[in-house]
This record gives sequence, structure tokens and C-alpha cells, in this order.
Amino acid sequence: MAALTRVHVVGTGLIGTSIGLALSGHGVEVTLEDPSPTAMALAADLGAGRLAGPQSPQGQTPEPEVVVVAAPPDVTSDVVVAQLAAHPRATVTDVASVKRVIEAELLACGADLSRYVGGHPMAGRERSGAVAARTDLFIGRPWVVVAPPAAAPGRIDQVCALAELTGAVVTRMDAADHDAAVAAVSHVPQVAASLVAARLLDLPTESVALAGQGLRDVTRIAASEPALWTQILVGNARAVRDVLAGVAADLAGVVAALDAIGDDPDSPAPGARRALASVIADGNAGQARIPGKHGASAVTYAEVTVVVPDEPGTVGRLLVEVGEEGVNMEDMRMEHEFGRPVGIVQLYVVPAAAQPLTEALRARGWTVRD
Amino acid sequence: MAALTRVHVVGTGLIGTSIGLALSGHGVEVTLEDPSPTAMALAADLGAGRLAGPQSPQGQTPEPEVVVVAAPPDVTSDVVVAQLAAHPRATVTDVASVKRVIEAELLACGADLSRYVGGHPMAGRERSGAVAARTDLFIGRPWVVVAPPAAAPGRIDQVCALAELTGAVVTRMDAADHDAAVAAVSHVPQVAASLVAARLLDLPTESVALAGQGLRDVTRIAASEPALWTQILVGNARAVRDVLAGVAADLAGVVAALDAIGDDPDSPAPGARRALASVIADGNAGQARIPGKHGASAVTYAEVTVVVPDEPGTVGRLLVEVGEEGVNMEDMRMEHEFGRPVGIVQLYVVPAAAQPLTEALRARGWTVRD
Repeated sequence: MAALTRVHVVGTGLIGTSIGLALSGHGVEVTLEDPSPTAMALAADLGAGRLAGPQSPQGQTPEPEVVVVAAPPDVTSDVVVAQLAAHPRATVTDVASVKRVIEAELLACGADLSRYVGGHPMAGRERSGAVAARTDLFIGRPWVVVAPPAAAPGRIDQVCALAELTGAVVTRMDAADHDAAVAAVSHVPQVAASLVAARLLDLPTESVALAGQGLRDVTRIAASEPALWTQILVGNARAVRDVLAGVAADLAGVVAALDAIGDDPDSPAPGARRALASVIADGNAGQARIPGKHGASAVTYAEVTVVVPDEPGTVGRLLVEVGEEGVNMEDMRMEHEFGRPVGIVQLYVVPAAAQPLTEALRARGWTVRD
Repeated sequence: MAALTRVHVVGTGLIGTSIGLALSGHGVEVTLEDPSPTAMALAADLGAGRLAGPQSPQGQTPEPEVVVVAAPPDVTSDVVVAQLAAHPRATVTDVASVKRVIEAELLACGADLSRYVGGHPMAGRERSGAVAARTDLFIGRPWVVVAPPAAAPGRIDQVCALAELTGAVVTRMDAADHDAAVAAVSHVPQVAASLVAARLLDLPTESVALAGQGLRDVTRIAASEPALWTQILVGNARAVRDVLAGVAADLAGVVAALDAIGDDPDSPAPGARRALASVIADGNAGQARIPGKHGASAVTYAEVTVVVPDEPGTVGRLLVEVGEEGVNMEDMRMEHEFGRPVGIVQLYVVPAAAQPLTEALRARGWTVRD
């Protein structure tokens, strides 16, 4: 297959502009199109490509090999249909975070599914729009390629090549598997975080003040944007519903067990304790399946906890000395003590490094907890 | 009220031993007791106090002013009753993470509730036992003091003074409010994390591989210990059930809305979108009530994102330079790019410091993302 030389990007928001930047950086000729002339001009100014179509100063634009539709999920299928018609030899792909609904809509309107290959680059930011775009947005991130059964193999290869050119790690799935996967790893966690956080609404302030790190972690993504998430949940309604039905059934079991215990914890109904224990144990097993940050299987790092004064530069000096000991941190967390100017720094290192590092830091005068 | 001079600690696990260490450090004469002679001897060796009772080499032990029962929740009330009888002038407190059940059990067996004041120091570690004890375990942490209606004011003051001596921040609540608070901020988040993680059990490995930071955060505490959590949930069954019933009702609303949408996202049933949006919006509002790490109200810090090579010492050099710029980090996160030896360091600083810091780091040659 020939290398990609010309790609047309429709939609110059965060994802479309970042794709344009990444492909342009690899010598691909990128043309840009957006319903908003301002957004399109901004993306071009940022170096994501040059303007195409009626706005192009170059006149006739040569045909692209691939068209990337980077539009919001609720208009994606319409734009894909229009692009398949406008570019009768091009492969058309998209970036929507839901896939089954889009395939169904394309099928329903008789689109040429031999030239359409869906995609879902799993990268995002808190900020949106071309101004937030980055050439390295996709580096090392999963990019799911979802080919309908009718897609021609050469078209699939083109879309995979495009994704790889941005630095993404390509995974192939069918639409149903993709939607079920993102329901379980992204959409259902969002709903759960929101439901737990909503329970804090009516709690007295002094009760909310008892919150610890566990609650903070569980509810961090509850700060997400309602309009965007409504669109995502609507677009993946069936798959999210299926996973949530499992959560609801398990939850009903927990409530029933707690009801059976009631105010008499010393003689709970037979099976009530076992039901609760198995929910926690299943959670252990599920959590253990989540891959580590490097994308490898989950690794347990050893934790070295250092108490430091909460002053500029202290943590830096600590980490320089960790580096001088030749130890590579795999992760790190900082925590401030409630109401005190003392910081707790948790260093995560490979298990074999923990004991020597603890001793070395103590010898250098740091307070390392046992 | 006279200062505390003599305290008896029953139960030399993590919490009891840490209390002994903290009080001994403030000149309190601490005696120790535990059903396990080995655990008791270890706590004494660590400096948490001296052995008391039949094991005491000093013969007759002077009466303590306060007895701290640091036993597992399911035996706490029995031990409190025994200590009230053994020390007829002492105030008796406990450290159990549930309070209403214990008050009810004490009431049922006719204990002298004028001398009992419950407590719940909200500090813990992943590790247990005397060997994990720390003199600074309670510094800056909430310690809820729960006095039954019959408790004498002087007794309550003694328990508050003891908690403050360990460095904890004392909050007073009644038993029902305490149990409802920990249900919402601790026990229900645990159940939710476990239920979400359990949904990953049957997911194909390549689907679990799409996990991002959101799933990791929501499910981190799903790694908790089943036996301990069964005991906690059983002990707070009624309050946890009440909060979970609210979660279940909201969840049923989400499932109903998703059912109404089904495979037709373009024309969902009236109200379905609104129902989903309001769940996310309620989560926003609840999450915003969680206090920041310093125990103050939630503060939004600005994020400065730096891309660094994943090599020993690099992050340290970065943070030293942040310190040289006079900027204090409020928090920090590290993230590795999926499959790549590149680290992303997110520095959280007060909003006014973000722009000057970004410019200063760039001038020093660091790659700071927009």
C-alpha cells in the first residue's frame, strides 16, 4: 500500500486539529474544513493544514486518500455520508466515541460501507477547540479502529496507517465490542462517580468534611461536563444500559444483605455476610485486571513515604536525591496533612528498590516512614 | 480540668499502638493490654507504653483517667463493658468506625453510659498491626467524638483532650449523624468502586486495555480487603443501606432513561436527555462540596503540564527549578504515556502562578504543554 500523502480533515476542534498537526508533522498534505470559518482559519494558522474547498486559495484541490470526519457524535453519520459522496474514491473515517449507532445510521441511508472505516482515538483534554490542539495528543494512546463487515481490507489498512502515523497504538474491534468496552471502562465509571457525588448534596457540611482520599478518587470525574456526557450516554445508550443493569443487580444484592442485617450485626441472616464479602472480592479481582500506566499488565510497585516540609523546592531536592541514588520513580503522589503545612510524598518504585532507597534517604536526613 | 496523666490502651494493633506512641510522646503515662502477649510486648518495645495488669512487672498499676478500647468493631462493646467494670472511676472511649450499634449494645446491657464517650479517629493505613504504628498517624486527621446523651460533660472533655493531644482535629457528632456521614463519604464509595470494578471481570483483555485514568481513580479503593470491609458494612448496615437506596433509585432513573433511548439516539423519549444531564449535574454539585486537601473548602488549582523523559532525576531537576522560581506546588501527578518512555508531570499551583511558571520553565528549556 502506498504511503499516505493527502488527508482531508472535516471538523477543526481539538481532535481534528490535533490530527492535522500530527499528520502535517509527518509530511502529509492536510486540507481542513469546518462549518466555522474562524475555527478553520485558526487550525490552519496553527499549522494543522491548509484550507480546502470553496475557501481554498489554491483553486482545485487534489483528491485526498483519506477523509477524517472529526465532528460531534450526533452529526458524524451525516457528515460521513456527505464526504463519501463528495470524495468518491477516498476512504472515510471518523473519531466518534460511539460506533454501533453510527454504523447503523450509515447502513440505514445506504452509504457505501466498503469505503468507511470507523475510528476512536482515546485521547482528550479538559479543554476543547483548535486552540487546545497538540501535535502529541495521540502519542502512546489507544486508537480503536472499527471496520464494518463490508469494509475493504485496503481501506482498513489506510486508517490503521493514519492512526499509527499520529503515534497512537492501534487496536481493532467490531462496533459492538468497542461500545461494550467503552461502556465498562469509561461511561459506567462516569455514571457511578456522579451518583456517589450526588449523595453528598444533602449531607451536613461537617459530615462532608470527613471526606478522605478514597472519596476524592472515586468522585474526581464527577466534575465532568453534563452536556458532553449526556451526548455520550445517549449515543451509547444500549451498551451503557447493559453494564449498568449488572451494577444495579449487584447493588440490589448488597441492599438486600444490608436489610437482612439491619440493626442487628451480631446475628445477620445466613448468607448476608457472604454476599457482602463476595462483592468486595469481585471488586478486587476486577480491579486487578486494569493494566498499569505503561500499558503493560498491572504491576505492583513498592511505596516509599517521605514526610517533607511544605516549602518550595523541597520535593524537588528529594527527587534529585532519588535520582542520584539511581532509582527511577514509576509514580508519585503528594498529600498534604489536613490543616498542617506538612507534605507527604509517596514514591512508587520497583519493589527491589524500596529498601535500599529508604535507607539511602534516611542516611541523607529525610524522614521516611516505616 | 486536670491534664491527662494516665491512659490505659486496650488493643495494641495499628490504632491502639499509634495512640500509645502519640500520648507517650506528650508525657502521658500509658499502660497497654492486649489478648495477644506478643502484640502487647511489641507495642511496649516500640515505646507505646508499659505493660499493665497481670503481666505488669511493676505490681499494682495506678488507676487510669481514660481507657481507650482499640479493639475490632465486633468486640468493642464487650470490651467497653469490661473496662467500665474494671476501672470504676475512669472514662472509657473506643475507636470503632461505627458508633450507633455500639451505643445500642452498651445500652442493652445496662452499661454506665455517663462514663462512656465514643470516638472515631479517621486515620488508617494499608498495613495493620503494631509494627505499622506511627506516632504521627493522627496529625491533622479528623477524630469524631460521639457522646451518648447520658455522657457527663467532663468525660467528653477528657476524650476531646486525648484526641487533640495526638494532633487530631476533633469534630463532635451524635451516633446517627456520624454513621450517616461515614456511610456517605467512605462506605458507599467503597461499594460503588467495588461494583464498577466487578464489571471488568468478564470483559475481554483487549477491552480492559482501553482503561484510562478515570477508571483507575474510580476503582483504586476496590483493592480493599474483603474481610475488614464486610465487618465495616455489617456494623453500619442501616446507614449504608439508606445511602445506597438513594444511589439505587438514581441508578434506576438512569437505566430507565437509557432504555427509553435504546438504539435510537436521534429521537429519545421526552425527558430522557434531561434525566441523564441532571444526574451528571448533581454529581458536579456534590463533588464541589468535598473540601480540598488542606481541609479548607475546595480550591481549584491551575494545572501546568510538563513532558519529561522517563529517566532518574529528571522530575527532581524540574521541581528544583519550580522551587527556584519561588512557586509552591499544591499537588502533583505523574503519568506515563501508554507504551512510551515519556513522562507527563502535572503540577498544580495557585492560578496566579500558572502563567509565569509556564514561561519560566519554557525559558529554562522544559517542554510545557499549552
